[in-house]
Amino acid sequence: MFNTFGNILKLTTFGESHGVAIGGVIDGFPAGLKVNFEAIQQELNRRKPGQSKIVTQRKEPDQVEFLSGIFDGVTTGTSIGFIIKNTNQKSKDYNHNTNVYRPSHADYTYDKKFGVRDYRGGGRTSARETANWVVAGALAKQLIAHISINAYTSSVGDIFLEKPYQSLDFSKIEENIVRCPDVEFATKMIDKIKDIRKQGDTIGGTITCVVQNVPLGLGEPIFSKLHAELGRAMLSINAVKGFEFGSGFCGAKMTGSEHNDIFNKDGSTESNLSGGIQEEYLMVWIFILELPSSRLQLLCKTSLP
Amino acid sequence: MFNTFGNILKLTTFGESHGVAIGGVIDGFPAGLKVNFEAIQQELNRRKPGQSKIVTQRKEPDQVEFLSGIFDGVTTGTSIGFIIKNTNQKSKDYNHNTNVYRPSHADYTYDKKFGVRDYRGGGRTSARETANWVVAGALAKQLIAHISINAYTSSVGDIFLEKPYQSLDFSKIEENIVRCPDVEFATKMIDKIKDIRKQGDTIGGTITCVVQNVPLGLGEPIFSKLHAELGRAMLSINAVKGFEFGSGFCGAKMTGSEHNDIFNKDGSTESNLSGGIQEEYLMVWIFILELPSSRLQLLCKTSLP
Amino acid sequence: MFNTFGNILKLTTFGESHGVAIGGVIDGFPAGLKVNFEAIQQELNRRKPGQSKIVTQRKEPDQVEFLSGIFDGVTTGTSIGFIIKNTNQKSKDYNHNTNVYRPSHADYTYDKKFGVRDYRGGGRTSARETANWVVAGALAKQLIAHISINAYTSSVGDIFLEKPYQSLDFSKIEENIVRCPDVEFATKMIDKIKDIRKQGDTIGGTITCVVQNVPLGLGEPIFSKLHAELGRAMLSINAVKGFEFGSGFCGAKMTGSEHNDIFNKDGSTESNLSGGIQEEYLMVWIFILELPSSRLQLLCKTSLP
Amino acid sequence: MFNTFGNILKLTTFGESHGVAIGGVIDGFPAGLKVNFEAIQQELNRRKPGQSKIVTQRKEPDQVEFLSGIFDGVTTGTSIGFIIKNTNQKSKDYNHNTNVYRPSHADYTYDKKFGVRDYRGGGRTSARETANWVVAGALAKQLIAHISINAYTSSVGDIFLEKPYQSLDFSKIEENIVRCPDVEFATKMIDKIKDIRKQGDTIGGTITCVVQNVPLGLGEPIFSKLHAELGRAMLSINAVKGFEFGSGFCGAKMTGSEHNDIFNKDGSTESNLSGGIQEEYLMVWIFILELPSSRLQLLCKTSLP
Repeated sequence: MFNTFGNILKLTTFGESHGVAIGGVIDGFPAGLKVNFEAIQQELNRRKPGQSKIVTQRKEPDQVEFLSGIFDGVTTGTSIGFIIKNTNQKSKDYNHNTNVYRPSHADYTYDKKFGVRDYRGGGRTSARETANWVVAGALAKQLIAHISINAYTSSVGDIFLEKPYQSLDFSKIEENIVRCPDVEFATKMIDKIKDIRKQGDTIGGTITCVVQNVPLGLGEPIFSKLHAELGRAMLSINAVKGFEFGSGFCGAKMTGSEHNDIFNKDGSTESNLSGGIQEEYLMVWIFILELPSSRLQLLCKTSLP
Repeated sequence: MFNTFGNILKLTTFGESHGVAIGGVIDGFPAGLKVNFEAIQQELNRRKPGQSKIVTQRKEPDQVEFLSGIFDGVTTGTSIGFIIKNTNQKSKDYNHNTNVYRPSHADYTYDKKFGVRDYRGGGRTSARETANWVVAGALAKQLIAHISINAYTSSVGDIFLEKPYQSLDFSKIEENIVRCPDVEFATKMIDKIKDIRKQGDTIGGTITCVVQNVPLGLGEPIFSKLHAELGRAMLSINAVKGFEFGSGFCGAKMTGSEHNDIFNKDGSTESNLSGGIQEEYLMVWIFILELPSSRLQLLCKTSLP
Repeated sequence: MFNTFGNILKLTTFGESHGVAIGGVIDGFPAGLKVNFEAIQQELNRRKPGQSKIVTQRKEPDQVEFLSGIFDGVTTGTSIGFIIKNTNQKSKDYNHNTNVYRPSHADYTYDKKFGVRDYRGGGRTSARETANWVVAGALAKQLIAHISINAYTSSVGDIFLEKPYQSLDFSKIEENIVRCPDVEFATKMIDKIKDIRKQGDTIGGTITCVVQNVPLGLGEPIFSKLHAELGRAMLSINAVKGFEFGSGFCGAKMTGSEHNDIFNKDGSTESNLSGGIQEEYLMVWIFILELPSSRLQLLCKTSLP
Repeated sequence: MFNTFGNILKLTTFGESHGVAIGGVIDGFPAGLKVNFEAIQQELNRRKPGQSKIVTQRKEPDQVEFLSGIFDGVTTGTSIGFIIKNTNQKSKDYNHNTNVYRPSHADYTYDKKFGVRDYRGGGRTSARETANWVVAGALAKQLIAHISINAYTSSVGDIFLEKPYQSLDFSKIEENIVRCPDVEFATKMIDKIKDIRKQGDTIGGTITCVVQNVPLGLGEPIFSKLHAELGRAMLSINAVKGFEFGSGFCGAKMTGSEHNDIFNKDGSTESNLSGGIQEEYLMVWIFILELPSSRLQLLCKTSLP
């Protein structure tokens, strides 16, 4: 099941960037949830390319259509099928060069692996697939409304937001086009991207995600620990090259006595360097390098199933 | 299936540090392989604690017994059951303090999650579980003898081996107790660990793994990309806090033009910053922070299924 | 994964009888097959209600639309998404009686299980779901063209076709509306059904399926033996109440010496009472009781994934 | 995962009849159950060959050893590993004839499929594997003590117990060696088997299983309906050639009006011909043909996971 992700909720997806439609099936979704369709569409809009001057200008409406599993606006407990039509599928803007492979893309690998090439574009490897994940994630989020999930751009190139997440106001993430909650750093990042774009180039960056109010003990030993499943999910996103949680790679330089999460009397810990699901927050750092820098902020706050 | 890992070969494991035995079942292993039992035992010996002065002195023989799936030394195509008896299961060295939880360990979380506590030790959360993985990994390696897998300690605390892996001689990895192929850096790392041990403390570090001769296109879209599956596997190891591949987190500071993997005429690329499975090598960086520093080198070269 | 079936090819389905569309995702389909779309549509037409006077008159066009995984008529190795629109979804012909449950249907059970009711019709429990299976089965059949699969109506009520399948001409199955290859028995069956319909009633029956040229050893021990997987598939069809293979229930009256499949010198056996996958044929008997007798022949020859 | 069965509880098994041991891993078992080990051993004893004069005389102690997942007699929520040692593994009683294949057994098929032969006996295909299922089933039964499961021999050759299950006293099943709750029919069956044994032959039969107090709506649409999963499980047992539930094959001769399960006011139905999980009982008929007749009663009441 290589096109399926998840344990309790399972998402199975299909679709190529230039086919008729992309979509998926969500299995295991409980009955009785009154669906907020607008909230789903809002998340899709946030993912959509072409929203600001610092990103690619390709426009796709990305309207999700639910085909089953929801009746009178309420989930029925049966599998939820959905599609997003590809309105841009004419592929006028692509050369039908079947012998040209884009560097750092999967074109060449797919061609050799499958022996068949969809020369219209990225095909199944296109990051357009993440729109399917946003649909499933936005729906799943409505089941766990008490868990707070906030992601923001924490670096662009060598500009790092050097502030602890506890000092940030997450409500400001949406106030700028680079989705960094700190105005000063946001401005620097935007200037950096504009600069790079003038040179006809793109730039990498990192996303930080803070998840709060996670139930103690979420995830399952031995191979479905929460951080292992999150790692697999994040590393499935196009252009992501690394994943860390808790102290992350910084912890490699620390001693055990510096790193130990001392317990408080109420079961919480002084820090959460270990990233354990033992208290009220979990900190996840993900790293994304996207060659078209336009994609950078689109992945902010993407909630995966 | 939370105690199962793998797609083609599937490993299902069981066992606690102070129970009768740990073990597992390997499903999907093809018939007809003449098993090299000595090679499996050698890998288990490499994992075993207590091998040098810089690590914990607890000794366990870790002798694997195969119970099925192998007849006259040859695999039969049926499921392979195996166990490793726990000879140290007396647990004399553990206080039966059911109210004390070790910081940065899962004791507290397990107790709250399951409502039952095995106060004898780490139980199912013990890194002793990795012995099961070594058995399965060592057996799986015999199926893919043409793929070369080399892992080594690339940093201890702030001592980083600042040499490209292409310049290292992997045959020297086993020549020192810290398993770093560069003698000069190995000495520095060992001195650092001895120092830290004198202070009664431990120290973190990183492991680098280089996999060569990987078949083009290994892994499956969309959710079983090789790097996503490797990420999940590595993040399942106790104390691992991060995973990166290709350019990794360094890539976040690079521009698209610097990062692009330009194709050579034969389909190989100039670099493999993208970490794609499109040519002859794949570079994987994993990061491990282990509070007892003794565990550091034990995880080197662990080949997971 | 309760809406998923299959091991090598996996079908995940969705859809209710009165929703927008039904459909599914086929995962694991190999690249490079030139798809015969007409053959798929033909199988869908065979399943479609309303084809003859002896069945229900509801008409649905059942036009399958492939959304992904096929490019220029050739499979690409990526997941194949498809939908069949429900053109009859107005549900004028259903009373909106939310308190009336049809006997021997799942209406009551679903209502109690999920707490939500789609009063427009059978919803997810409708046999319309089998149209999804026909799409996947018809596509899968194109991969195994060398295996011959023939199913026919072997009984209607107490009229049993008492001839061994070896004496039947399978090419005649489609020549009559009850899909029985023997003209004499077909006429009796049709008369029986017409009779029962005049009384405003319906009647049960059985389907026999003969699969020939099955590769030796198909299926996997221990829990995916071919007959166990076929049994699960057939028992998933609405109204099927039993499944037998090889000698089936008749074998329960036989002695071991009567039942033993004696080997011929070439590895084939004199009979295949044991139903083993050891020679050139496998005989599968399935039993279907469908209250609207109209559904009876629709399930003939349904090829499941 | 061909050696794995189950959805909520998952059993993964291994082992050959003449290997060191058979065994398995139970994944997903909840924490906190005080295990009744004696009850498990009792079920194993019931399965054991050699218990009466009408069966094969081979004796195996079949002592289960739990290796993990249970601490101080209570399940811990982690995977439960167990083994049953093969004390009869000397295989003195088997000819090392690698070219002789037993008819109606999988010897020939395995040899051709895997290219490797364990000539000591049935190997992985031996019905000894069912001992693993009994361990898992007996443990699972302790979780669902309120559900009553009773199986009995309902026919031997042409002797059929022609009484509705409602008129039988299940407490008498264990009172005779053929495990038929009706003394008169039990005597006839035993005489029949003794007769057949004198002729050096064996005889088939059927098992009926009655499950009561099943929770409404158990099982999951579309492919894990309870009867489909039960069918797969029963058809996995060696020598089972058919499975029916509810009205079963008898229903094929009935009209819709005869077959309909009319609802009573309390939601129960007048009959349960449809076999639905909508009321207090589910009736399952399974058919077993076992060439050594000795195995016949051993499978009675086997509760599968």
